[in-house]
Amino acid sequence: MNADDETPDVYEEVIELAKRRGYLYPSFEIYGGVSGFWDYGPLGKELKKNIVDLWRDRYVVEEGFREIETTTVGAEQVYEASGHAEGFADYLTKCGGCGGYFRADHLVEDHSDVENADGLPREELAKLLADAEAPCPACGETITGEVTDFNLMFETNIGPGDSRKGYLRPETAQGIFVDFHRLKRFYREKLPFGVTQVGTAYRNEINPRSGVVRLREFNQAELEYFKLPDDELDLEEYRDVDVRLYPVGEQEKEDGEVLETTVGEAVDDGVIASESIAYFVAVSQEWYTEIGVDPSRLRFRQHLPDERAHYASDCWDGETLTSHGWIEVNGVADRGTYDLERHMEHSGEELRVFQEYPEPRVTEETLVDPDMSELGPRFGGDANKVADALEDLAENDPGAFEGDSVEVQVAGETHEIDVETTGFERREVKESGENVLPQVIEPSYGLDRIVYSVIEHSLDHDRPEDSEDERRVLRMSPSVAPYDAAVFPLVSKDGLEPIAEDVESRLRDAGLMVDYDASGAIGRRYRRHDEIGTPFTVTVDYDTKEDDTVTVRDRDSTEQQRVAVDELVEHLEERT
Amino acid sequence: MNADDETPDVYEEVIELAKRRGYLYPSFEIYGGVSGFWDYGPLGKELKKNIVDLWRDRYVVEEGFREIETTTVGAEQVYEASGHAEGFADYLTKCGGCGGYFRADHLVEDHSDVENADGLPREELAKLLADAEAPCPACGETITGEVTDFNLMFETNIGPGDSRKGYLRPETAQGIFVDFHRLKRFYREKLPFGVTQVGTAYRNEINPRSGVVRLREFNQAELEYFKLPDDELDLEEYRDVDVRLYPVGEQEKEDGEVLETTVGEAVDDGVIASESIAYFVAVSQEWYTEIGVDPSRLRFRQHLPDERAHYASDCWDGETLTSHGWIEVNGVADRGTYDLERHMEHSGEELRVFQEYPEPRVTEETLVDPDMSELGPRFGGDANKVADALEDLAENDPGAFEGDSVEVQVAGETHEIDVETTGFERREVKESGENVLPQVIEPSYGLDRIVYSVIEHSLDHDRPEDSEDERRVLRMSPSVAPYDAAVFPLVSKDGLEPIAEDVESRLRDAGLMVDYDASGAIGRRYRRHDEIGTPFTVTVDYDTKEDDTVTVRDRDSTEQQRVAVDELVEHLEERT
Repeated sequence: MNADDETPDVYEEVIELAKRRGYLYPSFEIYGGVSGFWDYGPLGKELKKNIVDLWRDRYVVEEGFREIETTTVGAEQVYEASGHAEGFADYLTKCGGCGGYFRADHLVEDHSDVENADGLPREELAKLLADAEAPCPACGETITGEVTDFNLMFETNIGPGDSRKGYLRPETAQGIFVDFHRLKRFYREKLPFGVTQVGTAYRNEINPRSGVVRLREFNQAELEYFKLPDDELDLEEYRDVDVRLYPVGEQEKEDGEVLETTVGEAVDDGVIASESIAYFVAVSQEWYTEIGVDPSRLRFRQHLPDERAHYASDCWDGETLTSHGWIEVNGVADRGTYDLERHMEHSGEELRVFQEYPEPRVTEETLVDPDMSELGPRFGGDANKVADALEDLAENDPGAFEGDSVEVQVAGETHEIDVETTGFERREVKESGENVLPQVIEPSYGLDRIVYSVIEHSLDHDRPEDSEDERRVLRMSPSVAPYDAAVFPLVSKDGLEPIAEDVESRLRDAGLMVDYDASGAIGRRYRRHDEIGTPFTVTVDYDTKEDDTVTVRDRDSTEQQRVAVDELVEHLEERT
Repeated sequence: MNADDETPDVYEEVIELAKRRGYLYPSFEIYGGVSGFWDYGPLGKELKKNIVDLWRDRYVVEEGFREIETTTVGAEQVYEASGHAEGFADYLTKCGGCGGYFRADHLVEDHSDVENADGLPREELAKLLADAEAPCPACGETITGEVTDFNLMFETNIGPGDSRKGYLRPETAQGIFVDFHRLKRFYREKLPFGVTQVGTAYRNEINPRSGVVRLREFNQAELEYFKLPDDELDLEEYRDVDVRLYPVGEQEKEDGEVLETTVGEAVDDGVIASESIAYFVAVSQEWYTEIGVDPSRLRFRQHLPDERAHYASDCWDGETLTSHGWIEVNGVADRGTYDLERHMEHSGEELRVFQEYPEPRVTEETLVDPDMSELGPRFGGDANKVADALEDLAENDPGAFEGDSVEVQVAGETHEIDVETTGFERREVKESGENVLPQVIEPSYGLDRIVYSVIEHSLDHDRPEDSEDERRVLRMSPSVAPYDAAVFPLVSKDGLEPIAEDVESRLRDAGLMVDYDASGAIGRRYRRHDEIGTPFTVTVDYDTKEDDTVTVRDRDSTEQQRVAVDELVEHLEERT
């Protein structure tokens, strides 16, 4: 089966628009392209930047979860510790005919009744593949090859020779864990704290076949929230946020349904077990709505137990409904102490955080310091054994030292020894705190799928009053749309162009992203910017020369109003 | 020689501060680190982000040079076309003793009188290395190994097997050239236009030994400005910008000096040959000053002819003076048509831009259409040769057809033919424009070195009035400092903390980056934020409870003033 056979029309329409208008470009297109690689054109980059800025506003500015930036090339030890070197793999098979590589689980799913071959053990999958007699998607020959593990990390060598292996990071999260020894000092060892990272990550897919939805190089925005195991985030502010939840219980029912509830109720009803996870579900919901994901095509689905990553004890995925079905756009996972524990083990670095007790804890310690100048002559070669026995006794039964003498047994014989000789002492030990390995809650966002969802959810068609034909319009939220406004001279003569250029630079100087468009009939320019998603167009016409006003047209309603040039910046800033 | 031997004290001081305070962290430090890899800690990331934002303000918002984002993993064909697969290499040698790899040119420079071994042919370098009898920097054994080319691109495989090679991009620029066929359509084929990209690039150094100044993974901000060969940017706005220039002529003198001049004068005097290059030198100068590079430690140096990249016809480097000497922080290069020409050749894609003439050009074309039913019988097997001869004649000497007959020579014989028989015709051809390969001017910035320069140039020591000891202070420009302000409760009792927390959230809600710091004596907190470079600290004290004012302290002067809490946001926004 070819990937294109499955691709729905809406996806084709979005991609055609995205390529033509400058949202998304296939990478290396002039050399035939490579599946799994897409570039952001000028509009896509601006849209993505606006989306990331709003993410940072929430997490970095408002919550104070500081952002770091670690390298994309990682040392081998990092991914040995994280488990990726061993466990981050897909099942691979090779066609004996053409030499093409394919995912064994996909072939089994496409050519047998098995629906989820992804999680099966390798041998079972190999047997199913042999039984399926699947034809090669490229050449048609029956696939008879072996099934092997294929690690999904891109591999490279650092420096000359092959002695120093490196991997392109499979997630931005590991950079945060590996820098944790420094980050905990940055936060003065005070839990809880959060650290964010936004950047590229890589997954060397065997044969990606879902266009922009399955990329080999992609963009993540991740937050690692480090807390004491018993601490929970305070949900108060977010209790009333409406969410659509799809918990395990509903997924297992034949007629399971999405629950429409609030985050507060979901926690009260035990649907979401942890307030910290609920907190990030709520923040995600609000952010998705802000950036223009359609709330009716958004849900949070709980991972089934066999879906969870090796480290996660609970996980909820944000999912959007697109032409590719429901796709995962973010996950909120409880990673526990797994990662820090592994890195502590592998590096030998102390990654626990010293937590002061509210009050210092006083405990009693006992100590013996036997006078060996007495024990030596008395017990000869057994003197050290007697000393050891005294130490054990002091630890297990300090009361025995309350009299003048104590009895210890060594090699079956009982000896009585003066307490004075044992050097017995009780001491008070004051402990001000202890080292604790923090627990990690991770909201992790797949930016490329989010950008795609925003574009697809914005796409609409209508027949506006100022047009005879149906138009295609991206009803993108002004908070994320690439251009804030476009400026048109009505015609390119009679001195309207210099005036329009002046209006344009006024808007630019005010920090607005503006396009200037003087090409083609005015109706055509409206259509162009409707399709781009520009929320407002500003037309300079003959009246502008008389009264210094311009026409501002609203993309969605197509309504027009006259605005004084002097008030234009304020007018647009208010509406965007 | 060990890298550390060369490292000056100031560099050590900056790096110690940067690591401790959260500006820069060595990557994978808990696993021993790998030279050439550094992470940005929370403060470094914020500083870099602020610097990039100001870059975008200039180029993307104000100039309208739209930004794109292309993948960091590139297909092999891209770098075959760009020339990197063949030419992006350093000279490598291997120690026979310990197996360590080293740059042959560095060994020669360190152990002979040769100063610039970098540009020498391989055989000459091999001879010099043999003569130098250089000891291995790692084990001390004399280096006797061969000198080979080592390509500096990180290599990887895309998908399973090794049939599809990929490279980590050595510069962000190629992504722009490879997407040019789409970008020219985005700009409706109207030259000039600019396209920017900010992102990571990679250079698999053999043995980097200059700390953060020579990275294997680094950050670039690049602009490719595409223009008609004869067009120049309009320098008017920037003529008066003061710059310090170090042209080839001065570099070649024994006592050559930096010229203090203006950009306008430099062009008038022919020091900078092209107005377009001068334009970007001026924008760079202004931007560097804005982000806090010390103008007295900044200069622009012209490349010597043998320094220029294979594609560049002229190049000026911005350089900052740091503890590593003068280091290159950006280059403004004329790349000519090299890159687009190569990609057009290798891909077969039309990368020229159709440029309409101001007026259509009318040229005359001549045409012959001989009547073969006459020529055939008359010339037999030579008829076609006669027809060809007529065609040549029409092209080279159309005047010959003005009479009734023409003469042509075929195989040494002259034939006379009726003009009517030749079907001779003159036609007017109207051409509305032509395809032109744009010329590229590229200002390319190395963000990591710029961030480092800003930190080092900010570092200062003084003895302020509110301290008995000397302090260390980062006098960072408020426009780029990681925190806009820090909020302190004077003490953590008597209800000052909740008030301070309230002040903090007011500032955060206003979008200011704020740190909250309640730990340690107030003097210690001043020192901490002086060292971080926080321009203003806000202290909540007992008076705050009475009159709702706070103390705002200026980092540089250490002067304090009381400001009403209600006016605090405005007060700080004005000053930052």
